[in-house]
Amino acid sequence: MKYFHIADLHLGKKINERSMHDDQEWILNQIVTQAKTHQVDGVIIAGDIYDRSIPPVESVKLFEHFLESLKGVVDAIYIIAGNHDSQERLSFGSTFFKKENIYISGLYEGSLVKVDAKDDVTIYLLPFIRPHMVRQYFTQEISNYHQAVDAILNQEILDSSRFNILVAHQFIVSGTQEPLRSDSETISVGGVDSVDASVFDAFDYVALGHIHRPQSIQRKTIRYAGSPLVYSQSEVNQEKSITLLEIMDKTLTQETIPLVPIRPVKVIKGHFSDIVQSEYTLDYVYLELEDTQEITDASMRLRQVFPNVLSIRYLYTQSLTSSSETLEISRVEDLSMASLFDAFYQTQNNHEMSGEQKKLIDSLIEQGDAHATN
Amino acid sequence: MKYFHIADLHLGKKINERSMHDDQEWILNQIVTQAKTHQVDGVIIAGDIYDRSIPPVESVKLFEHFLESLKGVVDAIYIIAGNHDSQERLSFGSTFFKKENIYISGLYEGSLVKVDAKDDVTIYLLPFIRPHMVRQYFTQEISNYHQAVDAILNQEILDSSRFNILVAHQFIVSGTQEPLRSDSETISVGGVDSVDASVFDAFDYVALGHIHRPQSIQRKTIRYAGSPLVYSQSEVNQEKSITLLEIMDKTLTQETIPLVPIRPVKVIKGHFSDIVQSEYTLDYVYLELEDTQEITDASMRLRQVFPNVLSIRYLYTQSLTSSSETLEISRVEDLSMASLFDAFYQTQNNHEMSGEQKKLIDSLIEQGDAHATN
Repeated sequence: MKYFHIADLHLGKKINERSMHDDQEWILNQIVTQAKTHQVDGVIIAGDIYDRSIPPVESVKLFEHFLESLKGVVDAIYIIAGNHDSQERLSFGSTFFKKENIYISGLYEGSLVKVDAKDDVTIYLLPFIRPHMVRQYFTQEISNYHQAVDAILNQEILDSSRFNILVAHQFIVSGTQEPLRSDSETISVGGVDSVDASVFDAFDYVALGHIHRPQSIQRKTIRYAGSPLVYSQSEVNQEKSITLLEIMDKTLTQETIPLVPIRPVKVIKGHFSDIVQSEYTLDYVYLELEDTQEITDASMRLRQVFPNVLSIRYLYTQSLTSSSETLEISRVEDLSMASLFDAFYQTQNNHEMSGEQKKLIDSLIEQGDAHATN
Repeated sequence: MKYFHIADLHLGKKINERSMHDDQEWILNQIVTQAKTHQVDGVIIAGDIYDRSIPPVESVKLFEHFLESLKGVVDAIYIIAGNHDSQERLSFGSTFFKKENIYISGLYEGSLVKVDAKDDVTIYLLPFIRPHMVRQYFTQEISNYHQAVDAILNQEILDSSRFNILVAHQFIVSGTQEPLRSDSETISVGGVDSVDASVFDAFDYVALGHIHRPQSIQRKTIRYAGSPLVYSQSEVNQEKSITLLEIMDKTLTQETIPLVPIRPVKVIKGHFSDIVQSEYTLDYVYLELEDTQEITDASMRLRQVFPNVLSIRYLYTQSLTSSSETLEISRVEDLSMASLFDAFYQTQNNHEMSGEQKKLIDSLIEQGDAHATN
């Protein structure tokens, strides 16, 4: 049996207001073509099909077209919801899709969807969960993500004579080792959402989604497939790929198939006067200006050379003109929810919140916390 | 062959902020039960599945559950999008649903979805269309709804040896005779959206949706099934029903099966001092107060007697306290789009638009018109 493991499609994604629709259509077609070339039996999509819970209509059509094309080539498709998906909306029609060998697990409802495939392979689907979403199903204490996933998996009785694959969408760590992240994943505050890889000990392969850089955690067979496209500046040097699994007689062979985007994504750093003299290119670029003073009309003049510019950032000014302004990840983990919101508000509005607004946010956060711990 | 013809479910509908979810769940279960009792082969749903293009998650789940339950009882389901549905979103999965004999036509794409059913019955699906949505497919001039539907239907070649059913969701008139409307349908301005029933001459039965009162137009076999529940005050005295079709040897027998809601809907009219002494009831009520002065705490005190009150309206005051304030239908047709928006804004905000806002609206309407006539 041959499987493709992919994840984090984020259909409907925009980078600084630029729609990635055409890029996504291109890369999905490539995945279908590769599935045909490699005579793949099944495709696993480990969450974050869409970039938000109510995706644009064109993304819904694109995803349906992708499923339709894939089904012309492979026998089965296995899908879980990620944190970006609306679990209920993604599930619509799942009863009927199942009859076409398209298995969609949107919302965890007390047990995992389990599919016995050919050649002694069994696939378990664990959609993205938060602790409060699973507490009702268990008697033991569940106060964090690790305990939640642990409880869910412990409840399943695996047949060790089969090759057991788990599909999941969580933030997995191995002891103190964390996966290499990118800016585009949701940033966890204080690591509360991390799940130790030890929970997967019983599974032969764990097909993960959530982290955009393709990588294995703890062992080669616990793997993030990564996103099919570069979705943030921090992903620029990542080679995106499909993870190909071949299982024969309970033995796994693993390799990666590179994915080639319509156009490359680059970071270009330097002084305006140099950069503006670059050769005209349709490549996607993140521009980092080393000038210490803002240049008049910089954006307009740079766009003549780089029509597909994704962002322009002054490295050494305090200006807020950049549209890709982000907080340093290292700082984020030390900040409280209130300070994070405060920083977000400032970035969005270019001024601080009023005292009244701050009070409102504080009370909302308090209510949210109370709710989350109930 | 036996078919149920229903329409205008409007899942996710709220009446003055009150969710109709439980009522809808109840009535859908009743439809499934009736389908079983009458041993129906197929169910036709003539548009407006949802009340808005992005329905609440609970409505999406409810509709999936309805389809699932129905499919346990009937062989096939035929669905078109109405003007309230998102045509593309409703279509999601249609390729796969088709294999389960669930036919969904969301967006008109140049020809009608046509299903050959058993016993020489053929069913054509025409989703809700506006003239600008179909112009690209025709060379002749299409400047109104009638011409649009006429062009679409003329293009189809019917086999007159079969019993041909058309499913459609439009505003149908017969000469100068209009259907009896209710407040909850979209109000047409100046009748531009009307389609003369003569376009249906070639069809043996036309299963319509759009108008909430069950009724036939021109001939008994061109029929609005009506909504399954009372969705506005103007529908209070309508008996809601399912239209049952039985076709044998190309001969149609038609009857209606009454639908019974969880609780009745009533209009109660009188002075506050009388009404407030009514017996406690869980019925839905529209209260019409004949007092000429507003009563302090009227709403609170009436809700103690009528916990399921849908609206309270002073018949003889100019007050804006009523939450069911509506424009008189007769006036609406004479007003321009700008005046309609103006009136809407006033009702919502209790004050007029500023000069700047009016200018913005005017320019938007102009752009919209330009777009629509392109």
